[in-house]
Amino acid sequence: MKAIQIEANGNIGCLKIGKVNEPEVGKNQLKIAVKAAGINRADILQRMGLYPSPPGVSEIIGLEVSGQIVEMGENIDGFSIGDRVMALLAGGGYAEYVIVDQGSVMRIPDKIDFVQAAGIAEVFLTAYQAMFLLGNLKSGEVVLIHAGASGVGTAANQLAKEKGAKVIVTAGNDEKIDFCKKLGADFCINYKTDSNFDELVMRYTNNKGADLIIDFIGADYMTRNINAAGLDGRIVMLAFMSGAKADGVNLSKILMKRLTFIGSTLRSRTDAYKTNLTQSFTKDFLDLFNQGKLKPIIDSVYLWDKVDEAHERMGKNLNIGKIILKVS
Amino acid sequence: MKAIQIEANGNIGCLKIGKVNEPEVGKNQLKIAVKAAGINRADILQRMGLYPSPPGVSEIIGLEVSGQIVEMGENIDGFSIGDRVMALLAGGGYAEYVIVDQGSVMRIPDKIDFVQAAGIAEVFLTAYQAMFLLGNLKSGEVVLIHAGASGVGTAANQLAKEKGAKVIVTAGNDEKIDFCKKLGADFCINYKTDSNFDELVMRYTNNKGADLIIDFIGADYMTRNINAAGLDGRIVMLAFMSGAKADGVNLSKILMKRLTFIGSTLRSRTDAYKTNLTQSFTKDFLDLFNQGKLKPIIDSVYLWDKVDEAHERMGKNLNIGKIILKVS
Repeated sequence: MKAIQIEANGNIGCLKIGKVNEPEVGKNQLKIAVKAAGINRADILQRMGLYPSPPGVSEIIGLEVSGQIVEMGENIDGFSIGDRVMALLAGGGYAEYVIVDQGSVMRIPDKIDFVQAAGIAEVFLTAYQAMFLLGNLKSGEVVLIHAGASGVGTAANQLAKEKGAKVIVTAGNDEKIDFCKKLGADFCINYKTDSNFDELVMRYTNNKGADLIIDFIGADYMTRNINAAGLDGRIVMLAFMSGAKADGVNLSKILMKRLTFIGSTLRSRTDAYKTNLTQSFTKDFLDLFNQGKLKPIIDSVYLWDKVDEAHERMGKNLNIGKIILKVS
Repeated sequence: MKAIQIEANGNIGCLKIGKVNEPEVGKNQLKIAVKAAGINRADILQRMGLYPSPPGVSEIIGLEVSGQIVEMGENIDGFSIGDRVMALLAGGGYAEYVIVDQGSVMRIPDKIDFVQAAGIAEVFLTAYQAMFLLGNLKSGEVVLIHAGASGVGTAANQLAKEKGAKVIVTAGNDEKIDFCKKLGADFCINYKTDSNFDELVMRYTNNKGADLIIDFIGADYMTRNINAAGLDGRIVMLAFMSGAKADGVNLSKILMKRLTFIGSTLRSRTDAYKTNLTQSFTKDFLDLFNQGKLKPIIDSVYLWDKVDEAHERMGKNLNIGKIILKVS
């Protein structure tokens, strides 16, 4: 089958469509003919050699796809050949076919097309896990979502509003801020013009602080996140784009505010964990896509031979929502 | 009534028995004639002016007492005048009488005397909260307990063994190490002779790491705690005796290991929280004191006019388990 391969040095230009062996379906697994693949920031790190696939997983880049089931292993429950599905992957998405455990696969809601569906699994499941399974966000609470215009950010914003929470986002330009507002954000901070988001959050919340913070920035935001968190607040860190070494971390504030700081990734979780996550999300939220209450936010669509351009757009933080590769 | 007062500068010698007004019992509250009061490290900080009582709480030092009920407010359920009780306090314990919400009071198990009972509430409830409510310790897991010979440490060690966990402790001399072993600790590290507890934990666990770490040290241990934690590990920090500013915190390891770091204090919690905590502890563990499976570890007992000597002993880390003041 055709799949995107990493050639040479990991810079833009190194991704080429090549030929590889088709993966073989095993017990509990589905084989999906890929229609479209979502691009994630982790893909850029993997291209650069900084975030390899976990052991036993395809070395091909790509954490989520949409497509149709073309083959099923033993022990499959509730799926049929030809079903329109979307899947969360630990790798392998930039390819004509993927193999995935059935527990990481969701049926595509009727009103959602393949391109939109390729932008759901990774970001909505990541946001759902971070905000509800780890962050225990409750109705009426305040959540601060960094990178509010990113794929996970736009998903988190929508899920939090559906849950009845108050949403504060940070984003890097006015266009992104306007978009976050349209998605329901109650208060938006342009981090390029206002670096003191902690003070702004405190002012907005009458000094109560945020109950939950979803962070991708890491070291540079550590102190401000601790400042912006309220009593019994939770900080869920999903990436550390500014760096991995945090200095001057104020343990006194963490103790006095009784904060919980959680680092998490979805990719390395077990199939059993992903099955539980996917089932919970399906039960709680999936039908809202048919009702128009949740929307996959698609920034742009590239044919997969233009994958370089797609990566470049994400690398420059130009996207609002998801960048999608059309595979077939 | 008589109560210990802080005079002058907060150094040893500043604590004197003086006269203050007796507190008045309110709705849901019990008045206890104090027999004995437990000394906690927080008391030393309060004496030095570094950890004042929360708003609305007695300014008298003392977070736990044993004694007998002498008066009851409205709405009391399940207690009678004369009952032998032990209580968790937010302040006020170094006194002839204390007033406390009934939810923070436990009946003293029949086989436990007043001196022993004064060493149960704060340390066992703190350890219980840290290990089970916050740290979610499960049977078969590995817990690393720092300051294993301290009051909370000796309580945590016993509770963890009762739960079926494997216990690793750190302590500062061989006498303390021997004592921790007698309480059931599976592996003991003398932190004065082996500063690399992270490597020793990894070796002992075949590189799996600790599932839970109970920390009181803070900044100096931050990096080693992160190193010693296993996948999906939890670190619960109850104090930061080495300092409150942590540098070089490795966010990459926190993310890749999916760690949860929790700061907590018991003193500032609401009455409702303490009621729930006390009830859960009573249900899960209190009868084990009658069965001899749990023991209040009493290091030494001082008449309360010798409170200076008691504080000095704790300040020098000489105690194994609790130091108790006899009030009447």
